[in-house]
Amino acid sequence: MEAANKLLAPTPIQYLETLPGGQEVFIKRDDLLGFSFGGNKCRIGAEFLEDMRRQGADFMVSYGSRRSNLNRVVASMCKSQGIPCLIISSEEDGEQDGFNAALVDFMGAGRVFCKKDSVAGTVGNTLQALRSQGHKPYYIYGDAHGMGNEETARSAYRKAYREIRLWQEHAQAEFEAIFLASGTGMTQGGLLAGKRQQHGREKIIGISVAREAGPGAAAVRRYAGEGEEEVCFEADYRCGGYGRYDGEIEGVIQRMMERHGIALDPVYTGKAYAGMLRWLERYGEGMKKVLFIHTGGLPLYFDYLNGRMGVGR
Amino acid sequence: MEAANKLLAPTPIQYLETLPGGQEVFIKRDDLLGFSFGGNKCRIGAEFLEDMRRQGADFMVSYGSRRSNLNRVVASMCKSQGIPCLIISSEEDGEQDGFNAALVDFMGAGRVFCKKDSVAGTVGNTLQALRSQGHKPYYIYGDAHGMGNEETARSAYRKAYREIRLWQEHAQAEFEAIFLASGTGMTQGGLLAGKRQQHGREKIIGISVAREAGPGAAAVRRYAGEGEEEVCFEADYRCGGYGRYDGEIEGVIQRMMERHGIALDPVYTGKAYAGMLRWLERYGEGMKKVLFIHTGGLPLYFDYLNGRMGVGR
Repeated sequence: MEAANKLLAPTPIQYLETLPGGQEVFIKRDDLLGFSFGGNKCRIGAEFLEDMRRQGADFMVSYGSRRSNLNRVVASMCKSQGIPCLIISSEEDGEQDGFNAALVDFMGAGRVFCKKDSVAGTVGNTLQALRSQGHKPYYIYGDAHGMGNEETARSAYRKAYREIRLWQEHAQAEFEAIFLASGTGMTQGGLLAGKRQQHGREKIIGISVAREAGPGAAAVRRYAGEGEEEVCFEADYRCGGYGRYDGEIEGVIQRMMERHGIALDPVYTGKAYAGMLRWLERYGEGMKKVLFIHTGGLPLYFDYLNGRMGVGR
Repeated sequence: MEAANKLLAPTPIQYLETLPGGQEVFIKRDDLLGFSFGGNKCRIGAEFLEDMRRQGADFMVSYGSRRSNLNRVVASMCKSQGIPCLIISSEEDGEQDGFNAALVDFMGAGRVFCKKDSVAGTVGNTLQALRSQGHKPYYIYGDAHGMGNEETARSAYRKAYREIRLWQEHAQAEFEAIFLASGTGMTQGGLLAGKRQQHGREKIIGISVAREAGPGAAAVRRYAGEGEEEVCFEADYRCGGYGRYDGEIEGVIQRMMERHGIALDPVYTGKAYAGMLRWLERYGEGMKKVLFIHTGGLPLYFDYLNGRMGVGR
């Protein structure tokens, strides 16, 4: 499997900076995973494709926003393995295609659009149509309502958590908290499951990039499975919702590139890093070491640069 | 040093594909170096900054085209270390700024433009002006004519060659040839020096991305130093010169993303990979294993996508 070949090695954990509050920040470089611009969705997508193969399915169906990193990775992995792929996206007000959507197109995946309140119906109809054409489709979220495939998604960051644990043992260091951008809940849920399984002690703090506290925490809990008792989902730093950002987030993105040569984007990782900084100001007194997981999304950084350069699309 | 912190680990060497002629192609992922989008210029830039520090200089001066990866990396490393930086570029006919130039701007480096036939004069005047302002400038190429700092540049890929040698010993495999995009000659020269020093036996084949055979080979020879006796600089696949590309190169870029989730760009790595394929068709009979060095240049891939998407700048 070509994709897996490029994903074998654990990603580095690097010291990044010490904050005014005294906390040392480390960063896990999942942005350096070597397939289709990296990111958390490489790990998760690889699990979906493996599960699909186990089930003997022959047609991939995914769902997400036009800016979704998952859909870019899934379309790319499917292309590399000769698996046909359809991407369903809900039409958001005024949301435009960026590099992720362009890459979905260039990888030859089909795209289907629907209204936000008719996702389940569109997924159901799509799967039915594929079956009637003789295909055995695989929907990454499970059933048409997006339920039932939590274990597959969870397994990706349950494994990644192991890398974090081993690093700490090797470095004889303990992170008091792990921060990450939290959207679908798959990544945070997997980390929580890994923590429970491997008796970790860190707080695992998801910075919401979109959802409000209630539904966001519920999604994480669902993906966490056995790790569900303790869900820290912080919805105070959403900046008004999915894809929205302000000067503070832009400042964090600029500063990260200036100081560390690392690209963050305004939709996920930049928002999450900015949220982490605020969270630590409020609650982080006495914390010594924290880890930020860079969950990738490089094409979104270049979308952002296009915007800054006044390049229309 | 922040940059070095992110550059410590050797980059992976991965099996990529087997060509119709039977050659197995492996790829060294220098595109995954974790500072400012990676690439060979991370290794080379780090050597320049280290040399600058040894000399006690306080102002960085670099030179290159608007699309130069080196200038993007140097501007970024300087910013991260608080070193002021000036980038001199010659004005090529119709050459436009892309993401690399934008990143130079965002990193706060100054930019100076000159005609192609007045580079040495512009460099000399710039260095003189900085000295008269009380600075001790460092010009990465040496003197105003670009001579004298070959050893610093060479050391980067002399070290990287060691990684390749160790990998072969560990894998009990031998590459018959190492291919790479060859422009300034710094990377190929360093590899040749490493090969000589470490008694390697591979052919090291630079695919010219710009220069004709004579001046190109001379540049490589200069950077190769002790490894200079054997320079393989292939100028047959230049596609008309720097920055030019055709449908064959575009096909290689598309296919690499489709099959392997790896981004090549039309200016350097895509042109070099296409050239390697042609070279192997002509001369590669009987070769079993070859290595392609992915020398990075990710921002140029997104420039290329902007072009494909019809996004003007």
